[in-house]
Amino acid sequence: MVDGDTIFRQFKEHSVAEFFKKNQQMLGFSGKVRSLTTVVHEFVTNSIDACEEAGTLPEIAVGLEELGEEHYRLTVQDNGPGIPKTHVGKALGQMLAGTKFHRYIQQRGQQGIGASGCCMFSYLTTGKPTRAVSCYNGTRYELEVLIDFKSNKPILNMLKEEPTQEHGLTVISEYKGVKHEQSNKGIFEYLRRTALANPHATIAFTDPAAGRMVLPRSTEQIPPRPFEIKPHPLGISAHDLLEAAHHFREYRKLSALLQNAFSRVSAGKVAELRRAVPEVDFDKNPSGLTWDEAERVVKGFQQVKWIAPATDSLVPIGRERIENSFRNIFSPELVVVTERSPKVYKGGIPFIVEAGIAYGGGMGAAGKQGEIMRFANKVPLLFDTSGCAITETVKAIDWKRYDLKNFDEEPIAVLVNLASVHIPYTGAGKQAVAGGEEVENEIRFAVMEAARSIQRYLSGKRRAHEIANKRKLVERYVEQLASDLADLSGSKKEKIAKKLNDIIEEKYARPVEGEEEGETNGNGTQGTGREAGKAEPENGESEG
Amino acid sequence: MVDGDTIFRQFKEHSVAEFFKKNQQMLGFSGKVRSLTTVVHEFVTNSIDACEEAGTLPEIAVGLEELGEEHYRLTVQDNGPGIPKTHVGKALGQMLAGTKFHRYIQQRGQQGIGASGCCMFSYLTTGKPTRAVSCYNGTRYELEVLIDFKSNKPILNMLKEEPTQEHGLTVISEYKGVKHEQSNKGIFEYLRRTALANPHATIAFTDPAAGRMVLPRSTEQIPPRPFEIKPHPLGISAHDLLEAAHHFREYRKLSALLQNAFSRVSAGKVAELRRAVPEVDFDKNPSGLTWDEAERVVKGFQQVKWIAPATDSLVPIGRERIENSFRNIFSPELVVVTERSPKVYKGGIPFIVEAGIAYGGGMGAAGKQGEIMRFANKVPLLFDTSGCAITETVKAIDWKRYDLKNFDEEPIAVLVNLASVHIPYTGAGKQAVAGGEEVENEIRFAVMEAARSIQRYLSGKRRAHEIANKRKLVERYVEQLASDLADLSGSKKEKIAKKLNDIIEEKYARPVEGEEEGETNGNGTQGTGREAGKAEPENGESEG
Repeated sequence: MVDGDTIFRQFKEHSVAEFFKKNQQMLGFSGKVRSLTTVVHEFVTNSIDACEEAGTLPEIAVGLEELGEEHYRLTVQDNGPGIPKTHVGKALGQMLAGTKFHRYIQQRGQQGIGASGCCMFSYLTTGKPTRAVSCYNGTRYELEVLIDFKSNKPILNMLKEEPTQEHGLTVISEYKGVKHEQSNKGIFEYLRRTALANPHATIAFTDPAAGRMVLPRSTEQIPPRPFEIKPHPLGISAHDLLEAAHHFREYRKLSALLQNAFSRVSAGKVAELRRAVPEVDFDKNPSGLTWDEAERVVKGFQQVKWIAPATDSLVPIGRERIENSFRNIFSPELVVVTERSPKVYKGGIPFIVEAGIAYGGGMGAAGKQGEIMRFANKVPLLFDTSGCAITETVKAIDWKRYDLKNFDEEPIAVLVNLASVHIPYTGAGKQAVAGGEEVENEIRFAVMEAARSIQRYLSGKRRAHEIANKRKLVERYVEQLASDLADLSGSKKEKIAKKLNDIIEEKYARPVEGEEEGETNGNGTQGTGREAGKAEPENGESEG
Repeated sequence: MVDGDTIFRQFKEHSVAEFFKKNQQMLGFSGKVRSLTTVVHEFVTNSIDACEEAGTLPEIAVGLEELGEEHYRLTVQDNGPGIPKTHVGKALGQMLAGTKFHRYIQQRGQQGIGASGCCMFSYLTTGKPTRAVSCYNGTRYELEVLIDFKSNKPILNMLKEEPTQEHGLTVISEYKGVKHEQSNKGIFEYLRRTALANPHATIAFTDPAAGRMVLPRSTEQIPPRPFEIKPHPLGISAHDLLEAAHHFREYRKLSALLQNAFSRVSAGKVAELRRAVPEVDFDKNPSGLTWDEAERVVKGFQQVKWIAPATDSLVPIGRERIENSFRNIFSPELVVVTERSPKVYKGGIPFIVEAGIAYGGGMGAAGKQGEIMRFANKVPLLFDTSGCAITETVKAIDWKRYDLKNFDEEPIAVLVNLASVHIPYTGAGKQAVAGGEEVENEIRFAVMEAARSIQRYLSGKRRAHEIANKRKLVERYVEQLASDLADLSGSKKEKIAKKLNDIIEEKYARPVEGEEEGETNGNGTQGTGREAGKAEPENGESEG
């Protein structure tokens, strides 16, 4: 009975490509519409990242041709730097290879799985390789890429090579068993939201039925480029420290390693650490560091006061851009955008949350209710809605506190963008953000801050309305009262009436101005800035 | 400007271990409580699978020691066959290695990531290796396992080796930064639900505070062992067929390959295929099969009538076991369990859905409302609740149709177990099931079928109540009427009254019996069997 032999004879090793081949749904390849949107998402994300790295204003052209029933050819072209021949295989035909995974920088892609996953999905549904045309550094080449699943290595077939003055990458791939549709999960909605969060990009889409549509850039200004930062001591684990000791062999002393491998560690801070952790020798060679010592140093990190991580490495969408986008899309009655200061999660990973709320106006007319638009590093998240910390946090807010009834029944759209050097996605499909107290709190505070402005506006509007009603009520008596007073006093009725009207005017003037202000700003903006954020006790406020 | 050199100099390859090290949240290592439950989940799952493979009644002992603040040592011991020395490294210290990933069989684990992920998480938080004591095939050995992240290979340190008569595996590992708590996300709740779905297992848990608790098996009967099946033609893609051609080189003819590599393909079916796809030569050597030919064969598969996949390879929990468990846990007023016949998704992957509903009684008393208990291959799913197709499908049912108000406000618990040879998890953390029309429909039908029984019970109860009221009303007039009729007819009043009462008795008897039946069966069971399932138009019914 107890005999595992038959079991263990079946022991095998598998590559990550085989894993995702069997679990395609984990990469977003589930559902005909979603699968196609996922492909567009992966290639467009990479294209914008490439342009950003090179400091180019992105020009992205997405073309979709219908080749048969549920059979499409997708072309995604960008004006980035292109990819050198030596790297294209890894970029498109090998999972977990690339520039993105190990870097500590805000970027749209961060896994090195996406594009290769698309190449895999294309092959699995059509048997065809993915074609890449790259113009890089004076050379244009055209090749075909496949993944060898067993080894997770690319198989390349070079088709053409010639000199060029151009630059950029074009990826052409085919898919079967997928569907293109105009819906809030479709390609166009994805690109529209991408444009919303990246207004410096021009995005063209050639729809097989509707033809070419262009989402032109609304600003020529390239947003500041996020820069790579070193890990902050507060985000370092004992393992990370040992790994750094192993990696940076050039530093002969622990003190030098700390100052060079991590941010914010100065000679002065090392001196503080020496006092905090006297049992560790900071002059020892890092190669001899033990786990116990590393753990003590990490505990020492917690005892020293640090300058916060360089959060200026984060580049949010920006208030003005969110406002403009909201107005363009929804023509709402009111737009409020919250910009909060950057924070850190898990001790050392910087992130920033932006939240915008659009209320009323065209939204109500369009029947939009309780919409949540999620972004991570400016990438729209269209799927896995209910499993996302953004959705859950926004829905858990007690909206009645802000004079809003049921969130789902209000003409309201909430936009949240989470920017970070590492987005904690729930899965390799990168469509939902995992929770965590710090991130969830920030999302909640940002949305609540915006909601307060909505509330002020709504209650101001309501108050103004009530006061105007009262004034009308009082004004009804002016005529009679003026006439009675004229009889009593012998003064002129008109004079008395004017005086009474002046009193009413004075008494109700400010609130009525308030009403006018409300109307003027109706389609305008009521911003809440960092000042407001500062005034608020950041760790005290809760929904409880 | 267009210079990618600085970017591409940073191109690197990464192992799957490095990927999950950076994205621990994808394996369920997010949150202090969840992380610890995840570890228990992975090891216990493997233990029960091992016992099942060996046909042993599982005896699982889980021990948790508190070593310091947020620092625990976990021991999971089973009486399975143990692991041979040659395989233990891969089982515990290498991701995507093992027996589970490639097999087409219903099993709890299916990825070959879980246990190695725990070993990784242990090392990352404590710097310590995971210790394994295995008694396999006459030899007991004790060793330490680590993962080399760069290569995703195990590092072993053999401590002891000696002969033994025992069998089984014990895994001992430490964790820091985790928390043990008594909650519906904690270890005990996980084990309780595991016992619920695996009543043939005895599970002991030694809590650091409360001491040893035992969940004894409630049946000595080992459930039928799921067996491995060959893929069904309806679930095969062109790529799968080509891969089979590459893998099974012993078959010189396509016809032989089809009959041996896949299930349900007979010589007769090959003849049908020849007629359906005359352009393909079924006598050709499979090694020369082109993508186009493979695609045509797959299209041919769709045109032939097939016997459904061997769904008896699936082993559900079973009605009786679900009923007993519900009664033990909730003491409900009513329990209904639906057993539906097996179905297939994606054309060829067999699955079966079981649904149980417990209503009223002790549940209402305990304040339980709208609880959803999710299982996949008898493994309880405690996390990622909202992103799971089971939750979403159950919540989307229009419960008012079944005379239930708001699902969340009823004393109701719904249990769903999805059993399949491949569970489509949303992520590597295996806590939520990805949607898909076929699976969602089955879940919906199963729960709706059970809900109808609840409705019948509730409306029967209500009707009986109404009728009893009417009877009381009528009975009030018997006295007066009998007296009046006696005056008119000269008959004896008592005789007339008796007759009237007999009439009433006859008229209201059956419904009143109905009421009694309702009461008798109140704490009993109203099952709906496969017959009921068959009577229902399976593809016609919808919630629309």
